[in-house]
Amino acid sequence: MPTYKLIVAYDGTDFVGWQRQASGESVQGLLEDALRALDGRRVKVTGAGRTDAGVHALGQVASCTLARDVAVDVLVRALNFRLPPAVRVLSAAEARPGFHARFRARAKRYRYRIWNGAVLSPFERRYAWHLVAPLDVAAMDEAARLLEGRHDFAAFQGTGREMASTERTILSSTVRRQGALVLYDVAGDGFLRHMVRAIAGTLVEIGRGRWPAAAMREILAAADRSRAGRTAPPEGLFLVSVEYGDL
Amino acid sequence: MPTYKLIVAYDGTDFVGWQRQASGESVQGLLEDALRALDGRRVKVTGAGRTDAGVHALGQVASCTLARDVAVDVLVRALNFRLPPAVRVLSAAEARPGFHARFRARAKRYRYRIWNGAVLSPFERRYAWHLVAPLDVAAMDEAARLLEGRHDFAAFQGTGREMASTERTILSSTVRRQGALVLYDVAGDGFLRHMVRAIAGTLVEIGRGRWPAAAMREILAAADRSRAGRTAPPEGLFLVSVEYGDL
Repeated sequence: MPTYKLIVAYDGTDFVGWQRQASGESVQGLLEDALRALDGRRVKVTGAGRTDAGVHALGQVASCTLARDVAVDVLVRALNFRLPPAVRVLSAAEARPGFHARFRARAKRYRYRIWNGAVLSPFERRYAWHLVAPLDVAAMDEAARLLEGRHDFAAFQGTGREMASTERTILSSTVRRQGALVLYDVAGDGFLRHMVRAIAGTLVEIGRGRWPAAAMREILAAADRSRAGRTAPPEGLFLVSVEYGDL
Repeated sequence: MPTYKLIVAYDGTDFVGWQRQASGESVQGLLEDALRALDGRRVKVTGAGRTDAGVHALGQVASCTLARDVAVDVLVRALNFRLPPAVRVLSAAEARPGFHARFRARAKRYRYRIWNGAVLSPFERRYAWHLVAPLDVAAMDEAARLLEGRHDFAAFQGTGREMASTERTILSSTVRRQGALVLYDVAGDGFLRHMVRAIAGTLVEIGRGRWPAAAMREILAAADRSRAGRTAPPEGLFLVSVEYGDL
């Protein structure tokens, strides 16, 4: 029973999210259906990050165990043949028995993209949050860096699916401008539900000058979701990559 | 009766092309309908390049004459309010009376994008031609440069809408690789119908090693469409910009 590690990219626009739901197309569901057709039995696929509806992935990692050995290049081609073009398996590798894409993940990287200009490019309409008012990127970056280190992130936890512990370690958290785009890049050992989008929404309040950069420290310390900014829309969020110690 | 110059970007995926057709949504039709609502009468919009169905624009230029003066920032906002997000007016400027976006254009720039890798990124599926077999980009660039200068481009003219003269001047024509992307950039004083896509299709034959780079010279000299490569698909083509002497 070989276990595989898949790297998967998807345009989340038309999906209900990573996780299989009662109705609507999910990335997990599409992968499980494609693997079932290939392996001849029901296959369970685990994703490193359970991205929400409308959230994209450049390098989601998924694990699965098949009944029979399949050459990894055959696996990639057979899955992509069955998947819609909005979901692509970029690569596959055989993993150690028991490899679990979520439990074994050491770090995840996310990017939140904001289009900060008068007119939203038609090519960014599905991939960025459009904000017309100018953003103070230096203040946003200063605030973003205050999140680095080990903290209780209860202030940025969405409702539902509450975790036993809301402590996480953020490895890096920065904001920079690239033309009309404002990019928030964050890496950490784990993320609470809606955490990156709640941070992005808070950074935008700081960028608009509603709160000073130092407010981020107080929001974090208060551990109260109502003190932080609103949850930024899903279309700006990308799961960039997932890191593991070894397979 | 003021005349305006509009710079327009659009994702061509879901349109029948620039030009108004008997059925289906066209960019010209959408702009004319939005201007009619604004100006209270039928408005004719002329585009610098009549892009085909599925072709995109980063900086199409359109001209129109309105019955009454409208501040350019109001014009941009009012049009974008009425247009779908796949079409955006990036800017507007008042032009000299009689300004005509097509007749007055001095040069146009196009880019043709090829995704040359095993797996097509989900984010490129509407914006690039996917070719798995490796392309010899140096040979493609050598061939592309042979098109620079004044030539008869009859070899690269699509059927229908034949022009009196098939001579055009190409100002620059180059191919380069950028990661998995192969980019063909071309600027010229004018282009025949399907010309950029027929050139891109021919460059791909050269990139695959089916023809040597020097074949481009013979194909050009033969002035016979059947000697050139096939017309590359529309989704890889972008009208990048249009240049004018003055307004």
